[in-house]
Amino acid sequence: MAELTDAKFEIVANRYGKSKVRLLKVTRAEGRSDVHEWTVQVLLRGDFETAHTVGDNSKIVTTDTMKNTVYSLARWSSATTMEEFAEELIEHLLRRNEQVSSVRVHIEAALWKRLTVDGKEHPDTFMRGSNEVQTATVEQARAGEKKFIAGFANLQLLKTANSAFSGFQRDELTTLPETRDRVFGTAVDAKWTYSGPVEFAAMRKAAREVMLKVFADHMSESVQHTLYAMADAALEAVAEITEIELAMPNKHCLLVDLSKFGQDNPNQIFVPTDEPHGYIEARVRRK
Amino acid sequence: MAELTDAKFEIVANRYGKSKVRLLKVTRAEGRSDVHEWTVQVLLRGDFETAHTVGDNSKIVTTDTMKNTVYSLARWSSATTMEEFAEELIEHLLRRNEQVSSVRVHIEAALWKRLTVDGKEHPDTFMRGSNEVQTATVEQARAGEKKFIAGFANLQLLKTANSAFSGFQRDELTTLPETRDRVFGTAVDAKWTYSGPVEFAAMRKAAREVMLKVFADHMSESVQHTLYAMADAALEAVAEITEIELAMPNKHCLLVDLSKFGQDNPNQIFVPTDEPHGYIEARVRRK
Amino acid sequence: MAELTDAKFEIVANRYGKSKVRLLKVTRAEGRSDVHEWTVQVLLRGDFETAHTVGDNSKIVTTDTMKNTVYSLARWSSATTMEEFAEELIEHLLRRNEQVSSVRVHIEAALWKRLTVDGKEHPDTFMRGSNEVQTATVEQARAGEKKFIAGFANLQLLKTANSAFSGFQRDELTTLPETRDRVFGTAVDAKWTYSGPVEFAAMRKAAREVMLKVFADHMSESVQHTLYAMADAALEAVAEITEIELAMPNKHCLLVDLSKFGQDNPNQIFVPTDEPHGYIEARVRRK
Amino acid sequence: MAELTDAKFEIVANRYGKSKVRLLKVTRAEGRSDVHEWTVQVLLRGDFETAHTVGDNSKIVTTDTMKNTVYSLARWSSATTMEEFAEELIEHLLRRNEQVSSVRVHIEAALWKRLTVDGKEHPDTFMRGSNEVQTATVEQARAGEKKFIAGFANLQLLKTANSAFSGFQRDELTTLPETRDRVFGTAVDAKWTYSGPVEFAAMRKAAREVMLKVFADHMSESVQHTLYAMADAALEAVAEITEIELAMPNKHCLLVDLSKFGQDNPNQIFVPTDEPHGYIEARVRRK
Repeated sequence: MAELTDAKFEIVANRYGKSKVRLLKVTRAEGRSDVHEWTVQVLLRGDFETAHTVGDNSKIVTTDTMKNTVYSLARWSSATTMEEFAEELIEHLLRRNEQVSSVRVHIEAALWKRLTVDGKEHPDTFMRGSNEVQTATVEQARAGEKKFIAGFANLQLLKTANSAFSGFQRDELTTLPETRDRVFGTAVDAKWTYSGPVEFAAMRKAAREVMLKVFADHMSESVQHTLYAMADAALEAVAEITEIELAMPNKHCLLVDLSKFGQDNPNQIFVPTDEPHGYIEARVRRK
Repeated sequence: MAELTDAKFEIVANRYGKSKVRLLKVTRAEGRSDVHEWTVQVLLRGDFETAHTVGDNSKIVTTDTMKNTVYSLARWSSATTMEEFAEELIEHLLRRNEQVSSVRVHIEAALWKRLTVDGKEHPDTFMRGSNEVQTATVEQARAGEKKFIAGFANLQLLKTANSAFSGFQRDELTTLPETRDRVFGTAVDAKWTYSGPVEFAAMRKAAREVMLKVFADHMSESVQHTLYAMADAALEAVAEITEIELAMPNKHCLLVDLSKFGQDNPNQIFVPTDEPHGYIEARVRRK
Repeated sequence: MAELTDAKFEIVANRYGKSKVRLLKVTRAEGRSDVHEWTVQVLLRGDFETAHTVGDNSKIVTTDTMKNTVYSLARWSSATTMEEFAEELIEHLLRRNEQVSSVRVHIEAALWKRLTVDGKEHPDTFMRGSNEVQTATVEQARAGEKKFIAGFANLQLLKTANSAFSGFQRDELTTLPETRDRVFGTAVDAKWTYSGPVEFAAMRKAAREVMLKVFADHMSESVQHTLYAMADAALEAVAEITEIELAMPNKHCLLVDLSKFGQDNPNQIFVPTDEPHGYIEARVRRK
Repeated sequence: MAELTDAKFEIVANRYGKSKVRLLKVTRAEGRSDVHEWTVQVLLRGDFETAHTVGDNSKIVTTDTMKNTVYSLARWSSATTMEEFAEELIEHLLRRNEQVSSVRVHIEAALWKRLTVDGKEHPDTFMRGSNEVQTATVEQARAGEKKFIAGFANLQLLKTANSAFSGFQRDELTTLPETRDRVFGTAVDAKWTYSGPVEFAAMRKAAREVMLKVFADHMSESVQHTLYAMADAALEAVAEITEIELAMPNKHCLLVDLSKFGQDNPNQIFVPTDEPHGYIEARVRRK
């Protein structure tokens, strides 16, 4: 919905908020603590046109206040998932600010794993896990339903068998050899939409695990082939998912040509590379 | 346009290509050289459904071939702008591959500045400039017109006068003091659309310069206020721009409280911070 | 040993080599594969003064050849640890190049963990672990013994109990409150020296595990206090370690002041920060 | 000087302090402002052994206090160079804390360039320059002289003519062709030592400029050859420099083989790469 600005130009869309609000929440019970490290982004849309056009801040909720809101709500929140905490933030912000027409909260969780010492879980010490981040986005327009998107980013995987790439088009600029046996490295970004609120933690776990299993077991003919199999499996396994989008770079592991040195290389010595890389994405939905 | 896959699920959209194809082109004439360092991304859409669903690669143009295409075309290309080179890539890829329905090429340019030695421009030596990148995206569906988007990213700016933030909403979670004099630091991302092919280099320069001028001279009441003034000025200055989108984080420079040490701080000593940061974006178009 | 250059200046030291040689080695046996991802740096010292002073490359081993050497040796290497592979590289380079007086090889290992699917270890699929890197440096002068340094970098840890910081100096610039209960976050860098070749894999494991245990169980009065306890424990546990150096930033987790909002904060809501950060290092050796 | 700890182990060395203390100082005079963005690190050595061994913090200056010291001193400091500000910090810290035996302050400056608008320098607006950072390290033991090290890091340069690499050693692992004409890309790190306090700003400028000039004009036979010429020129140009250390990666720009596509490539089309890269360093001093 375009907003009227002046005779010649119009603001088609605008939003603003606070990014990188980092929250570490420690909860303690029965002699042990749990930690959640979340990085929160809050974005508002609403009646902010005159802030842009004439510098009138009277309807502006400051981004500093959004930051304070994250910390204040976190204190008494009973949310155990990012999705639930996002819902609390949205409800608070819509209730307090009638000039706000919609709120979007995006949260990313860092992975802290409880340390095992002498074979036992330690009550209070944690080690950082991988750089995979769990993500949740909840968005709500004042009049509408909440929209829930869960996912993860940068799940780095490597598969050393059952990966081929052959039968593709060739022209005079094609130099890639066909192969029935390659190393397949990627870093999966996944986002999926729920039809409504669900058992967030359980659904996230189920979707992620089935995609891992398919990646591992798939006889891959291409990144596209495996990506689709993973999307298909997530839709199959979790009925509450309406649509899923996967993006998977092909982080090429190049077979080193050792023939110059009189050596063979039966798929053993590779150069992992970051650039250039293939990039494959698809969005699949339930009919 | 949803693609039919199986009884239950459908691929809503898919695309793939090569990212981070780095190209350094050196041209030499009349005793001096010029350099362009471009990072190219090529993305295709088309008739690729069976690659996903049954692992049939017969219509797949490999991403390795896309990389080769970038280097091969660069050799004989007469393009002097990213937009023109993107057009050449698109035309080549659409002509050769009838299964491709649209091509998107995105290019980012690193800044190399000719070195000045003893007051004279050196013929062959260059120093890396700032981390601002110039960007160009050209996209074309087989049946349609080319769409041109130019822009830049990460243009870091700092303004130590004529920046205020006051008159905003307050509630019990608001602790930010009002100020009529603050330091305003940002990193501008800009993207604008042309109505068709234009004098790309001249238009890019004109749009960027007028936005810099407005940022510098604006009596800013907020990031929104300055962002809109910049967008407005670009539309005013370059008639070929139909729409412009700006994103400007507020990279807060916090005034240090020295009163604890018996010192005043008349807007002199600040802590520049990266997180959390405000985030403001708007899209403005010609009516 | 200073090298003679010209009448006025002398080269005090020089070395050169290849950095970021990335190697992925896949070994297959009995229906399953193992992967090692190592990033190798090779540095040479030797009779290279005329390369500097008069541009005479006749004694220069090219860094491209060093890269080739890494891949060629990797093919037939039986090394299972970074230390052993570094030894092979050093022996090869010293034997072939009499102008080389010493070789230093530094290797960093990325962590790939075998995926568990349906409760069983998968034969061919791996997930990237944390950003902790295992490191090994081996250095040898032609006439001398090999020097072995093992370690790890960026082991991120968090401790939510048994960490205090009190009783420190106060002056008029001191505003930090004393605390008997804080959250202690760090990212440990460790390097230790062996008296000679050892059971590299076992010693690495033993040193790392005892330091993790001490970090977890220590009643910490400061970063220094815990750092020393960890170093002491490593020396105690692994007799082959002659000296250990630890560096531990204090990645401050700041308790949020919620009193402005009428809320208490009994060590629950923190802001994890990256900058500024404390930095503590010490080197401890066996007498 | 080893510190006695217990019967078996001794602390060979220890130091601690605060890193990444970010300071933006704005000074205003005659209708225009100037900005300095410095990132400060303070490290102390001293009588801190019991903090390590028994958790006694009574001699510990907190790193939080060091941070406060940076901001408090900055307020009334008249230093216009990093070296002078480092001296002020060192003098303050040594004077106040008799348990401290030496202080090291390292400062890095980000580059903000005054914006030019309509051909005139703007009084209050700045654009971020390149990622080159100017560095200064000043260190002083209680009993000794101050030691001054100035330098810069990440000065990215590219030279498209007058760069060769030939006449090097060949063995059966050497595949690199010789060339009399290559593209030479690097990112220079430089550190040099003064005999005592000097005109810091002028000396820094003189050393940097002569090295840039030599890089540009040198007929380079190798990275070593150019590196030494630059070091030699700096020692020649600035008599106050006693020793200089340069590190210059060879950020390879690989000539693309277009012969597969029936095209020549007369030094025009290159792939700039980050890894692997050559690494060359040398330290040169005045006799």
